[in-house]
Amino acid sequence: MFLDASGSAPMTNRTLEAFQAGLADGWTDPARLHTESRRARQLLDASREAIAEALGARPEHTHLAHSPHAAIERVIAGVFTARRGRDRIVASAVERDATLHAATHVAAGNVTTVPVDARGHLDLEAFAAEIAVPDVALAAVQHANHEIGTVQRLADVAALTAAAKVPLLVDATASIGHGPSPAHWDALVANPADWGGPAGLGIVALRPQTRWLPAWPEGDDWAPGGVLVPAVLAAAVALQERREELDATSLRLHGLVSRVRDAAAAWPGVDVVGDPDERLPHVVTFSCLYVDGEALLTRLDREGIAVGSGSACTTSTLEPSRVLAAVGALSHGNVRLGLHPGVTDADIDRLVALMPRVIADLRAEAGAPEVA
Amino acid sequence: MFLDASGSAPMTNRTLEAFQAGLADGWTDPARLHTESRRARQLLDASREAIAEALGARPEHTHLAHSPHAAIERVIAGVFTARRGRDRIVASAVERDATLHAATHVAAGNVTTVPVDARGHLDLEAFAAEIAVPDVALAAVQHANHEIGTVQRLADVAALTAAAKVPLLVDATASIGHGPSPAHWDALVANPADWGGPAGLGIVALRPQTRWLPAWPEGDDWAPGGVLVPAVLAAAVALQERREELDATSLRLHGLVSRVRDAAAAWPGVDVVGDPDERLPHVVTFSCLYVDGEALLTRLDREGIAVGSGSACTTSTLEPSRVLAAVGALSHGNVRLGLHPGVTDADIDRLVALMPRVIADLRAEAGAPEVA
Repeated sequence: MFLDASGSAPMTNRTLEAFQAGLADGWTDPARLHTESRRARQLLDASREAIAEALGARPEHTHLAHSPHAAIERVIAGVFTARRGRDRIVASAVERDATLHAATHVAAGNVTTVPVDARGHLDLEAFAAEIAVPDVALAAVQHANHEIGTVQRLADVAALTAAAKVPLLVDATASIGHGPSPAHWDALVANPADWGGPAGLGIVALRPQTRWLPAWPEGDDWAPGGVLVPAVLAAAVALQERREELDATSLRLHGLVSRVRDAAAAWPGVDVVGDPDERLPHVVTFSCLYVDGEALLTRLDREGIAVGSGSACTTSTLEPSRVLAAVGALSHGNVRLGLHPGVTDADIDRLVALMPRVIADLRAEAGAPEVA
Repeated sequence: MFLDASGSAPMTNRTLEAFQAGLADGWTDPARLHTESRRARQLLDASREAIAEALGARPEHTHLAHSPHAAIERVIAGVFTARRGRDRIVASAVERDATLHAATHVAAGNVTTVPVDARGHLDLEAFAAEIAVPDVALAAVQHANHEIGTVQRLADVAALTAAAKVPLLVDATASIGHGPSPAHWDALVANPADWGGPAGLGIVALRPQTRWLPAWPEGDDWAPGGVLVPAVLAAAVALQERREELDATSLRLHGLVSRVRDAAAAWPGVDVVGDPDERLPHVVTFSCLYVDGEALLTRLDREGIAVGSGSACTTSTLEPSRVLAAVGALSHGNVRLGLHPGVTDADIDRLVALMPRVIADLRAEAGAPEVA
């Protein structure tokens, strides 16, 4: 039972077959002149076009990067550098670490974060006030949050950035392939691994009028040294497959998440986080008072259930989730579910039946006080 | 007949099988806490260890990057930044464009290139004089040239850099898997696609005493956002396979290249480039007076033979090869062969038999003067 698909969804057989076909036909360097290379280039171009179309972007303004992080780093650096004379970046407080770190690096620390409300929505008034100052090079607001699922009101956000003539970077790394692609952005970032494509790729889309300057010395190359063409093909096929079933899948996963949200709200000492309605269909997070996140993950793992957590000590971070702090949620014993289309009703039945006992056991083991 | 394997060698069935096994077992993000993630992490660690061992490096000082270019960019930036107060980079004139571009970018243009002789060997006297000046942050000298095959005398180079206390970056992107790994370096870069692994990966190895500072704001991450674990597994298996057959394969390919060199030397108006003895076993370049490089490639492609060229207008560069200029070789009608282990004696027989006619035809079509 794999319920940790956010940013890392399993590949379907169709995607794996595309990957293998790509390894056979598109293995070579697409920048050379012979037939083998031309074939790789055709696969690459066709895959990029398919991804661009799904994003509502033009293929010639859709770029491949080496990871979502690399995509975020390069697009922030590129847009920032083109806005000479403006040296501050404004971002929502719930952006990814990669966004805030890249912004801090590029703007030499001159980054302002704008708070969100208890459901994770950007404070539009505070945001408008920040971007009204004429020193803003770039505003970064995500489409949907990867931890709590809240979808931002991007039409309102974009109206403000357009009025202030500030380019809007939308991080759609958690949302593409799970619902309609966002309509309001000047620059967009997406993550194929989140929609069931392979890891090690990131996508940047720009509007034709969005100005940027290359960071890499060799010119307009968003992935210096190239990408693995078969992986790009697999990413395109995975997105195509998701879009074919989009309405049915998102309706079904939305229902499964609602069941988890309703059940968890009734468990003692458990907070369900994020907007119950304006949210991703497949993501849900809840926090359990007096429970250690890592112990919870380990226990569920022993039961054969893989979940994520914003409060566990992963190999990459030792701090509890900044997103949970931003919405004022409990950061104890956090469980984050990301459901992929293969998750069944029975899987969720089992999780919902198991959780109250797991939470009670862990509290008892830790000698926690009674929770009503 | 694929004779353009430098930097882009075909994957063997064993490598493809490893890739597919990796897609089944190592598809998920290796930085999470559950069983699926742990399995991916184990595959990644084991693959990195195998690659490190082949490079003569320690696994904990062997890093994965998103491409050879990204590896070169990050290692140059990292070592340069750690050598505060020294602001110049010294490099051989035949380094890759990626190295010279990254050096120029990182050192803000303060890069000195040291000439090579007609066979491509570094001018050690000039090199010693350049690195004796105490403003040198880093010296970059490749192990072997990817275009002409010449292997540098790294023991001599490293004696000079050690005496001057300048860290030596060795670009081994053209040599690993084709002969013994170089012994003399402070930092090393390798390219799995060159030894029959997948594209979209680069390797950096550092000596324990080599100081560097991270460029990416999130810390010591050489591939921000992660790599595709199955690709790393495939890279490790491909290198293992190459090493098992190394002596026999390199002897055989060395012989095939010698046949091409000897034959080409007898064709009128054809220059064979690079050192005939101190060279990679599988790489050979020759240039044909009064012949257009792109026309030559296209003609051979129509005959079903894929070759490379340092003088063709590829999609990525419109300039003739800087390496050919550095050794004083003709840049007309350049043909660059990179032989992979699957190339047969019959393939080379066919090429050698065909070339004189192809060259004569192209000269006649172009109305070139008679060549004796």
